[in-house]
Amino acid sequence: MKVKNAMTADFLRSAYGGESMAHMRYLIWGESAKKDGYPNIGRLFDAVAYAEWAHAKNHFNVLKDEAGDNTVAAGAVFGHTNIVENLQGAINGELHEIEQMYPVYLETAKFQDEKDAYKAFHYALEAEKIHAKMFADAQISAKNKKDIGDEKIYVCPICGYTEIGDNVEKCPVCGAKRDIFKSF
Amino acid sequence: MKVKNAMTADFLRSAYGGESMAHMRYLIWGESAKKDGYPNIGRLFDAVAYAEWAHAKNHFNVLKDEAGDNTVAAGAVFGHTNIVENLQGAINGELHEIEQMYPVYLETAKFQDEKDAYKAFHYALEAEKIHAKMFADAQISAKNKKDIGDEKIYVCPICGYTEIGDNVEKCPVCGAKRDIFKSF
Ligand SMILES: [Fe+2]
Ligand SMILES: [Fe+2]
Ligand SMILES: [Fe+2]
Ligand SMILES: [Fe+2]
Ligand SMILES: [Fe+2]
Ligand SMILES: [Fe+2]
Repeated sequence: MKVKNAMTADFLRSAYGGESMAHMRYLIWGESAKKDGYPNIGRLFDAVAYAEWAHAKNHFNVLKDEAGDNTVAAGAVFGHTNIVENLQGAINGELHEIEQMYPVYLETAKFQDEKDAYKAFHYALEAEKIHAKMFADAQISAKNKKDIGDEKIYVCPICGYTEIGDNVEKCPVCGAKRDIFKSF
Repeated sequence: MKVKNAMTADFLRSAYGGESMAHMRYLIWGESAKKDGYPNIGRLFDAVAYAEWAHAKNHFNVLKDEAGDNTVAAGAVFGHTNIVENLQGAINGELHEIEQMYPVYLETAKFQDEKDAYKAFHYALEAEKIHAKMFADAQISAKNKKDIGDEKIYVCPICGYTEIGDNVEKCPVCGAKRDIFKSF
């Protein structure tokens, strides 16, 4: 696996940085949600953190032969106050990825004929669309001081596809069998 | 908790980015180490990933009232090939933090009288010194195609202090009692 173009390599590094920081802030916000009496929103943060791990890993692995130290420029959301605001931060981050970041990265990967990068960006974008919706639903509950339901949340470890409940036989994004899904 | 100065806030964000990416690459390299027949080096990667989580969380929490979206510039190491090279990447990352990054961030926090940031940077720097040594020792083993020993590895969840075996009654860096240490 080789990345041929510097711009695609840069975008993979930025995406790795963005996913790594998203993974981390969801772990942090998830811990707070549990402490604040929202165990199921906490679980949602943990599940989505795991999906962002899958995205970061995919980007990192497309770059596996590009060894070296880099300064990475990547988008991140900050703030750690209350659950409604934390969920707003999560929604903002996901929407930025859906509306701006991944569409441009995908267009570049197509333009530069970088198939492995294209696949990694595609997997991420599809999952982020789901995440934005899940966080928005959770925020509606949290605004009413209610937790979300206790249904299990499943994540595909290959592409980060995320679902509440047991709805599909195989991953609709990457085709993986659901018996490898991780449950939260 | 308020950060008064833009430069300190920027360095906290960069440190958060660097720690989040380090956390992520150690999870990735740790998984590979286990697959390649080095379960104990895999455990070391997992333990140090947890320490980097503590650092990232500390930096994020000093910034907790600085809500918003930012483009973060942060150092990261890339490459995912074999265990000796992955450990070299880990050593390089830790040494950069020890020799360059955290000394400058600490000096700035002192100069700008930012006590919370100073503490977060201090905790990280002390742990990174230990990490660099642990990864260097592990690399010597790996170069001889040997795993490291199976002694438990402990991490302080407050400051990321890391030790192999049960050596201290309380954390020598932050003073936490060892019964809150996480074991790997
Ligand atoms: Fe993602
Ligand atoms: Fe996401
Ligand atoms: Fe999938
Ligand atoms: Fe660290
Ligand atoms: Fe470290
Ligand atoms: Fe400590």
